[in-house]
Amino acid sequence: MSVRAVLFDIDGTLVDSNFLHVDAWSKALQDVDRGVPSWRVQRAIGADSEKLLQLLLGDVPDEVKDRAKQLNSSNYAELIPRLDVLPGAREIVSELSTRGLRVVLATSAPPEELEALLEVLDLDEHLHAVTSADDVETAKPEPDIIETALQRAGVDAADAIMVGDAVWDVIAAKRAGVRTVCVLSGGTGRQELLDAGAIAVFDDTADLLEHLDEVLG
Amino acid sequence: MSVRAVLFDIDGTLVDSNFLHVDAWSKALQDVDRGVPSWRVQRAIGADSEKLLQLLLGDVPDEVKDRAKQLNSSNYAELIPRLDVLPGAREIVSELSTRGLRVVLATSAPPEELEALLEVLDLDEHLHAVTSADDVETAKPEPDIIETALQRAGVDAADAIMVGDAVWDVIAAKRAGVRTVCVLSGGTGRQELLDAGAIAVFDDTADLLEHLDEVLG
Repeated sequence: MSVRAVLFDIDGTLVDSNFLHVDAWSKALQDVDRGVPSWRVQRAIGADSEKLLQLLLGDVPDEVKDRAKQLNSSNYAELIPRLDVLPGAREIVSELSTRGLRVVLATSAPPEELEALLEVLDLDEHLHAVTSADDVETAKPEPDIIETALQRAGVDAADAIMVGDAVWDVIAAKRAGVRTVCVLSGGTGRQELLDAGAIAVFDDTADLLEHLDEVLG
Repeated sequence: MSVRAVLFDIDGTLVDSNFLHVDAWSKALQDVDRGVPSWRVQRAIGADSEKLLQLLLGDVPDEVKDRAKQLNSSNYAELIPRLDVLPGAREIVSELSTRGLRVVLATSAPPEELEALLEVLDLDEHLHAVTSADDVETAKPEPDIIETALQRAGVDAADAIMVGDAVWDVIAAKRAGVRTVCVLSGGTGRQELLDAGAIAVFDDTADLLEHLDEVLG
């Protein structure tokens, strides 16, 4: 096993944003009179917004979905000042880059969200590439974003690992043939991540950094 | 096994409030310059506020703790209009009361929060008793609130079950000799609840209601 590239999810993995996403979506769904219990919203975070709405609301008119998406975006925009980097996030990316591995951020966040996330991370010089919603038609759990990230890294699936925090990260990476190491910092429980197929689970990227040699092999 | 009383936690079990508590505490901790990753805040929710601050901040000056508690209370007060009852919550309490079981709400929420929770639940005629922060010196994971709830129910620990959503509910009930059935609606994962000692885990109280005969024996 020779890992040459590490693909990182951002939300909940490098930046503490998942609970802000839960809040923004929960409020948006309440405001279109389709309130959903928050724990179910939490479990849907990390999936494409179309998939998230399908999971949470089932078949509803497009007007309702569009309105919910708009409200979610404006709710989330208000929460952006509260974004913070997660422990170990900067350190692990800089360590991997120093070791000569290619770090690709594999997210399908829309451009305006991505800009805020990258500003919080402040890691530009260590990043080989960054994907965004503009790169693919469909986001996680479809494998497209992972395949794009692999292309940018210029490596085969077998030579990369994904680091993520959501069941959707694991599923998307698996479909692209990439193994996933997970962190608990997104709020998903250890067993749920192992059940999805994560090869290992750490508290956060600080914890992963301490076990990096074991993971990279 | 003859269950004569059912003790319910409210936050995250009957009312969808845990994620609002995460938001209120996270913001309060950021505002006293002691930001903590949200997933760790989530795992501390359900514990007494003193215990929660000890878990999240360790030893910090009393002024910092007091300020954080004040900010949390005012943040949460603003979120109260978003409180909603969880699926099955009203139905299960009314079913148990109709069957002649004593339902006691075993919470250590402060009086002003409790009032809002009871209003959202709208279940007064089905409740045998309700505890609050005023009844005990120390809240979960200490067993005091569970012991008070048992006294109000007038039954022995062996004749009651606890229904809760947090590891703290399970620990507090176990210390009082009461078995706990858990729900996932508070956001804690199934395995974490089983590891703490839950005798069974259901999605929410609607799911528990469907399996009530198995649980009551």
